[in-house]
Amino acid sequence: MPEAAPKLARYLPILEWARTYDRSVLASDLVAAVIVTIMLIPQSLAYALLAGLPPIVGLYASILPLVAYAVLGTSRTLAVGPVAVLSLMTASAAGAVAAPGTAEYLEAAVTLAALSGIMLTVLGLLRLGFLANLLSHPVISGFITASGVLIATSQVKHIVGIEAGGDNWPAMLGSLAMSLGAANPWTIAIGVPALIFLFWVRSGFGRALTALGLPPRAADIVAKGGPVIAVVLTILAASLLELGAKGVDLVGAIPSGLPPFAVPSADLSLIERLWVPALLISIIGFVESVSVAQTLAAKRRQRISPDQELVGLGAANVASAFSGGYPVTGGFARSAVNFDAGARTPAAGAFTAGGIALASLFLTPLLSSLPVATLAATIIVAVLSLVDLKTPAQLWRYSKADFAAHLATIAITLLAGVEMGVIAGVTVGLLLYLWRASRPHAAIVGRVPETEHFRNVERHSVFTVPHVLSIRIDESLTYLNARWLEEYVLERVADQPEVRHVILMASAVNEIDASGLESLEAINHRLGDAGIGLHLSEVKGPVMDRLERTDFLEELNGRVYLSQNRAFRELARDDGSGSAEPDDMARGLI
Amino acid sequence: MPEAAPKLARYLPILEWARTYDRSVLASDLVAAVIVTIMLIPQSLAYALLAGLPPIVGLYASILPLVAYAVLGTSRTLAVGPVAVLSLMTASAAGAVAAPGTAEYLEAAVTLAALSGIMLTVLGLLRLGFLANLLSHPVISGFITASGVLIATSQVKHIVGIEAGGDNWPAMLGSLAMSLGAANPWTIAIGVPALIFLFWVRSGFGRALTALGLPPRAADIVAKGGPVIAVVLTILAASLLELGAKGVDLVGAIPSGLPPFAVPSADLSLIERLWVPALLISIIGFVESVSVAQTLAAKRRQRISPDQELVGLGAANVASAFSGGYPVTGGFARSAVNFDAGARTPAAGAFTAGGIALASLFLTPLLSSLPVATLAATIIVAVLSLVDLKTPAQLWRYSKADFAAHLATIAITLLAGVEMGVIAGVTVGLLLYLWRASRPHAAIVGRVPETEHFRNVERHSVFTVPHVLSIRIDESLTYLNARWLEEYVLERVADQPEVRHVILMASAVNEIDASGLESLEAINHRLGDAGIGLHLSEVKGPVMDRLERTDFLEELNGRVYLSQNRAFRELARDDGSGSAEPDDMARGLI
Repeated sequence: MPEAAPKLARYLPILEWARTYDRSVLASDLVAAVIVTIMLIPQSLAYALLAGLPPIVGLYASILPLVAYAVLGTSRTLAVGPVAVLSLMTASAAGAVAAPGTAEYLEAAVTLAALSGIMLTVLGLLRLGFLANLLSHPVISGFITASGVLIATSQVKHIVGIEAGGDNWPAMLGSLAMSLGAANPWTIAIGVPALIFLFWVRSGFGRALTALGLPPRAADIVAKGGPVIAVVLTILAASLLELGAKGVDLVGAIPSGLPPFAVPSADLSLIERLWVPALLISIIGFVESVSVAQTLAAKRRQRISPDQELVGLGAANVASAFSGGYPVTGGFARSAVNFDAGARTPAAGAFTAGGIALASLFLTPLLSSLPVATLAATIIVAVLSLVDLKTPAQLWRYSKADFAAHLATIAITLLAGVEMGVIAGVTVGLLLYLWRASRPHAAIVGRVPETEHFRNVERHSVFTVPHVLSIRIDESLTYLNARWLEEYVLERVADQPEVRHVILMASAVNEIDASGLESLEAINHRLGDAGIGLHLSEVKGPVMDRLERTDFLEELNGRVYLSQNRAFRELARDDGSGSAEPDDMARGLI
Repeated sequence: MPEAAPKLARYLPILEWARTYDRSVLASDLVAAVIVTIMLIPQSLAYALLAGLPPIVGLYASILPLVAYAVLGTSRTLAVGPVAVLSLMTASAAGAVAAPGTAEYLEAAVTLAALSGIMLTVLGLLRLGFLANLLSHPVISGFITASGVLIATSQVKHIVGIEAGGDNWPAMLGSLAMSLGAANPWTIAIGVPALIFLFWVRSGFGRALTALGLPPRAADIVAKGGPVIAVVLTILAASLLELGAKGVDLVGAIPSGLPPFAVPSADLSLIERLWVPALLISIIGFVESVSVAQTLAAKRRQRISPDQELVGLGAANVASAFSGGYPVTGGFARSAVNFDAGARTPAAGAFTAGGIALASLFLTPLLSSLPVATLAATIIVAVLSLVDLKTPAQLWRYSKADFAAHLATIAITLLAGVEMGVIAGVTVGLLLYLWRASRPHAAIVGRVPETEHFRNVERHSVFTVPHVLSIRIDESLTYLNARWLEEYVLERVADQPEVRHVILMASAVNEIDASGLESLEAINHRLGDAGIGLHLSEVKGPVMDRLERTDFLEELNGRVYLSQNRAFRELARDDGSGSAEPDDMARGLI
C-alpha cells in the first residue's frame, strides 16, 4: 500500500526518514550520539538530584523516552531527557504529596510522567497545541528566570555541605543564612573549585582549546564535555582523599542495571492531587521543546509539526513512566550539541539511549564516589545561563502590559512557587489581553475634502455634517467587544443630539460572531426607538453572506451601502428639512 | 464647591438628578412606584420560595436594596429586587452548605448577598466591568433557558402538592414521576387554575381589557397586576374552603415588621465555600441588570455607566445583606413596568421600597392563607417566558462555534447545575475564541497586473516571482498568534525552496506585542541562517514608533519599505544572477 505511506508517516515520522537511512547518515548519527551521551550522563544524575530523586532515575529517564521520541517525534535533532525546569517542577509537585527519599515520592514522580504523557498525547490527537500559546514570551521568560534563581539557590547547600530548606525564595535564603555556620570545609574545597572550573568551561575553555590548535567547532563540542572532566577529577579526589569519611556528601552506591519495566500505579487520589502540576509540566515542557525544535529545524529548512510533537513528547513521557523515570522534554543545550555534532535523524537519539543504557549497566559503580557538590555545581552553571536580566528593561521600554505579566510571573514564582507562578503569568497575560480585546479601536470619520476617503475626525481636517455620524470599526465584532460597541455607539449618539443617521463603516470587520450580531440588533432597536437610522457600509463579502442568513438585514432600520462615500453622500442630503441643502454643503457632498 | 459637584456626581449619581427634582417628577415617580409595588409583592414572596427561604426574606430584599441603588445607581428606571435566576443560584449555593429551612441556610443566603455586594463594588471601583464580557450572548441565553427549565421543573411539585427533589434535571423529572401518585387534589384544584389564569393574563388579559375600553398602555400595566388578582382569589378560596386542613400547603404565619438590621456573619469557612458561587451570582446579576438598564436608557437617550452600575448593584446587595435579604439585581419585567408607568428618576425605586415596607408592616397577616401553589404558578409563568427555543436554530445557521457554546451551557446547566453551567459556558466560549485568535488570516499576495495593488494569489490572477514571497498579515501580532506566525512563515518558505526574500505586508497589523516582536526576531534569525532576507512593508506609524525603541530594525536581515509595491519591485529584480532581468519579467515589474 504505497499510497498509505505518506498519511501514515504523518503519525509515524520514523517511516519518513527510515526509508532513506544509509551508512553515511548512520556514521553522523553515531558520532553525535557518543558526544550527547557523554554530556547527558552527568546532566541526568544532576537533574535527578534536583528533582529530589535517586540519581539512577535520571539515567532511567534518558533511555526509553529517547527511543519513543525517535519513533514518533518530528524533529530530526531534538535531544529528549530530563531538564532543569521540569526537574524543579517535579520536586515541587512530588514534594507536596510525599517526603523526598520515600517510595511515595518516587511514585508521585512516575505518576507525573504518566499523567503528563497522557495529557500531551491527548492534546496532540485533539490538535490542541494552540493552548501553549497562552504562555506568552514574557511569561515564559519570567518563569525561566525565576526558576533559574530558585534552582541555583536550592543547590547552594550542596556546594557548602549544609542542610537547608524553604518553600519560597526568601525562605530559602533565610534557611541558607542560618545554617551557613555548619558549612563543611572539605565540601567547599570540592564544590567551589568545581563551580569556578565549570563557569570557566562555559566561557573560556573553548577559546583555550582553539588557542591550542583545535578547530573551533571541535573545541566547542569538547568544551560541552567539561562537566565530565569535573566529574572524573572530583571522583578521583573523593576516592584518594577519602572525602566521604570527612563529611562530604557522595552520590553513594547506585544499583547498576537497566531500568525496571513497571506499570505506573493508577492511584486515583494521587491523580487528583497531581493533575494540575502534571498539566503545567506538560505545557511548559512542550513550549520549551517546540521552540528548540523549531529553531533547529529552521536552520536546515526542515519542518516540525507541533501537534505531532505533542504526541512524540507524550510517548516519551509515557515511556519514562513505564521505566521508572520522571517527566522529560527536549532540552535546549543538549539538542544544540546534538545538532552541532552532526545528528541527521532521530536515530541519533536512539543511539544515545543505547549509550546511557551501557552507562547504567557498567559505569554506575564508578559514580558512587562522585561528590554531590559536583552535580550541584553542574546544575548551578547550567541554570544561571537561563537567568535573563536584560528582558525586563526591554519589555518596560516596549510594552508596559507585557512588562507587568513578566514581573508578575517572576514575583509569584519566587514567592509562591513554580505552579502558582505559571498560573499567575497566564492569568495576568490573559486578563490584559481580554481587557485590550474588549476595548478595540474605533473612530468617528469624515470625508477628506475633494476625495472619497474617510478619515478619523481627530487626526485629519475632514468634512462632516451634524445629522450623520460615521463610525469606522477597526476590529472584528466578537463577544469580547460586543458590549463595548453598544456603549460606544449609544454614547456617541447621546453626545450629538442632532444625529438622525448612524453609519457603521465595516471595512476592517473580518468577522461578526453571534454576540456581535446581537449587539448590532440591540443598537438597531435602540436607535430605532430614538428615531435614528442605522446603516452599514463596506461590509466584507463573507461577513455579508452570514448576515444574509439572519433576519438582521430585514429588521435593519436603514440600508447597507457598498461604499462609505455613497452612504455619506446619500444620508447627508437627508437633513430632515426636506428642502434642497445650501450650496456650501452641497459642494462638500458631491 | 460647585466645581466638585460633577465629579462627585459621577460617584453619587443622586446628586445629578436630585438637583432638578420637582413636583411633576415626584408625581410620575409616585405613580410608577405604586404600580411596581403591587407587582413586586407576590414576586418577592415567590422568588424567596424558589430560593428556599422564608417568604418574608423576599420582602426584606425589596426594601433597603432599592434605596441603596437609588443613591448610587446610574439607571433612572431600573427596578432592583429578587429575580428568578439569582434565586435559583442562591438555592443551589446555599443548599450545598446547609439544609433549607435551617438558620445556617439563611445565613448562607445573607453571606452570598454580602460577598456578592463586596465583589460587585470592588469590580466597579477597579473598573473591571469588562469581565462581564466573558459571558457571550449564546452562553447567557443558554444559561437563562436552562435555568428557566430547571426553575419551572422545581416548582411543579408545589402545583400538585407532592414532595420531590433532585440535583439535576433528569433526577428532578425522575423524582417528580415517582411521587406523582401522592398528588393532593385540592392543591391541584388551586395550582392548575392559577397557572392557566396567569398564562392567560400574560397572553390575553391585556387584549381583553383593551376590548373593555381601557387604553392599551393602561391595560398593559393592569395586566402586569394579574398575579395580585390570583393571590387575592386563592387567599379567599383557601380561607373559605379551609384548604390548609385539606393538605394544601399555605405560606403560613409571616412575622410582620420591618427588616432586622444585622451585620452579616464573617465566618471564614463559609466564605471559602461560597465565594465562587457569589462571584458567579455577581456576574450573572450584573449582566442581566446592565442589559436591561442599557435598553431602557437608550429609549430616552440617557446614559448609564457600567462601572458605576457595578457600584450601585454592589451597594444594593450589601444593603440586602445588612437587612436579612439575599442577592438582588435589576429585573427585566419589573424595570419595564417601572419605565412604562412613567418613572423618571431612581426616587421611584425608593418610593417602591416604602410601599414594600408598608406591606411587610401591615399586609403580612393577610398572606398567611396564601397557597404556595399560587406562588409556584407565578414563578412557572415568569420563567417559562425566559426559555428561548428559537436561538439554537438561529445559532446553528449563523455560527457553529457559538452554537457549541450555547449547547454546552444548556447541557451542563441541566446536568450539573447552574454554577458548572456558567463555568462550562465561559470556558468553552473562551477556548473557541482563543482557538480562532491563534489562527488569524494571512495570505500570500501578488501584484494585480498594471496596478500597484497586491491581492491574495488564491483569489486573483496576480503576478509573482519565485524568489520573493509576499505575505499579508490580516491581524495584530499578539502572543496568541505569535507561534502561528513563525510556523506559517517557515512552512511557506520550506514549501518554496527558491525563495530568497520574504516580505511581510503589515498594513492590517495594529499592534505587535512583545511575543509578536520576539517571533519576528526568531523568524529573522531563522531566515538569516538559511540565507533569506526578511523585509517589512506598510508598517503603521504607531507600530513603527515602538519597533524603533528596540534592536529589531538594526538586526533585521532586510529592509522596511513604505509600500509593498516598492518592496516587491526592488526585491524582484534581485534574482540572484546579478545580471539584468529578462524583458518579460521587467515588464511585469516596473
